[in-house]
Amino acid sequence: MTRWKLIVEYDGRPFVGWQRQDNGPSVQQALEEAVQRLTGEAVRIHGAGRTDAGVHALGQVAHVDIAKELTDRSVRDGLNFHLRPNPVAILSAEPVADDFHARLSAIGRGYVYRIVNRRAPLTLDAGRAWLVWRHLDAEKMHEAAQVLVGHHDFTSFRASLCQARSPVKTLDLLEVRRHGVEIRVIARARSFLHHQVRNMVGTLVLTGEGKWTAADVRAALEARDRAKAGPTAPPDGLYFTDVVY
Amino acid sequence: MTRWKLIVEYDGRPFVGWQRQDNGPSVQQALEEAVQRLTGEAVRIHGAGRTDAGVHALGQVAHVDIAKELTDRSVRDGLNFHLRPNPVAILSAEPVADDFHARLSAIGRGYVYRIVNRRAPLTLDAGRAWLVWRHLDAEKMHEAAQVLVGHHDFTSFRASLCQARSPVKTLDLLEVRRHGVEIRVIARARSFLHHQVRNMVGTLVLTGEGKWTAADVRAALEARDRAKAGPTAPPDGLYFTDVVY
Repeated sequence: MTRWKLIVEYDGRPFVGWQRQDNGPSVQQALEEAVQRLTGEAVRIHGAGRTDAGVHALGQVAHVDIAKELTDRSVRDGLNFHLRPNPVAILSAEPVADDFHARLSAIGRGYVYRIVNRRAPLTLDAGRAWLVWRHLDAEKMHEAAQVLVGHHDFTSFRASLCQARSPVKTLDLLEVRRHGVEIRVIARARSFLHHQVRNMVGTLVLTGEGKWTAADVRAALEARDRAKAGPTAPPDGLYFTDVVY
Repeated sequence: MTRWKLIVEYDGRPFVGWQRQDNGPSVQQALEEAVQRLTGEAVRIHGAGRTDAGVHALGQVAHVDIAKELTDRSVRDGLNFHLRPNPVAILSAEPVADDFHARLSAIGRGYVYRIVNRRAPLTLDAGRAWLVWRHLDAEKMHEAAQVLVGHHDFTSFRASLCQARSPVKTLDLLEVRRHGVEIRVIARARSFLHHQVRNMVGTLVLTGEGKWTAADVRAALEARDRAKAGPTAPPDGLYFTDVVY
């Protein structure tokens, strides 16, 4: 039995999310079925992060135990063959120690959120970014974002369905930069609460529009009340970029 | 009557190309129908370049004459409203002189071609880039590309259906650069022959794979025979970026 670490890219649009659910196709199910077709083994795949419906991944990490003897290349290419036509790709596969766990061994996670700030609707980026019509001041957003960096109770930015034991997390980085008509928000932490990145982005957009100040963001954080922070940004713009072990 | 200059972005996937054809929806038709719904006028739209089926545009330019009095904003937002759900967007609309012609007044055109050079299939970039499995040496491709820059008879890189009067064109720029797993080819000229960019990219990939040298590209150019150059790269990776007037 070999434990394999997989780096996985996917387009989140056709899926109900990472995790298996009764109401539609999940990335986890697509991967488990591909392993079964490749090896004949019924397996359980564990991911580093449970992305929501419509959220994309450039570098999700998963692990799976496979009895059949395979090479790195045959796992990667074989799974990619059997994943078709799902928009899910194995970027790399490597054997790891038996105590490696994609979720529990992770010590850092990265996300990027893409906002397109223009009047015209999205064409090539439809479903792959959040279109915000009103002009956003990215520098104001970055300044307000610094209020959220650090060790805090993030209850105000936590989905009601969140299963984490504690709302206290350490946010290591929250950077907002404009690149032409695109604004990118980069977030890094050991782990995040459910909807935390999307709720932070929805709140930062209020500061970019000039409706809120950095002080308003601080007040929302300190209120420890989801109703006091901004709306949840849509899943379209969110990308799970990488996991550090 | 006002002549409007439109900057147009589109996802080429659902279209038979820019130009109206009997066998399916075109970008031109989508735009002409949107103008008709906005103004009640039956118009003819002229584009700077006739992109093929599946080719994208970030900055196609078109012109159209409209009798109804409208502001820049109402043309842009009104056309965008009526273009839905087509993946076509008007980035800007401005009134121009009556002798402005999107195609005939153009003095420069730019394209970018995106190659993703990796083993794993495309997910988020499916239909939006060319996946090349074999490792490509971008520096070798750039070196070979310089053979094509300048004033030449491009018969070897011209589609048999090409309607241009002369195969002689001046290629101002052909730059190949690697950005991680992505290789971008940037091409600039006053005008291009039909399939010229895709045929040049298909040939440069042979040099990136090590099958051809820069001397082979020179021999293909000098042969003035389409059969002597490389294959036509797929439309997926091609973007019409901008027009200079």
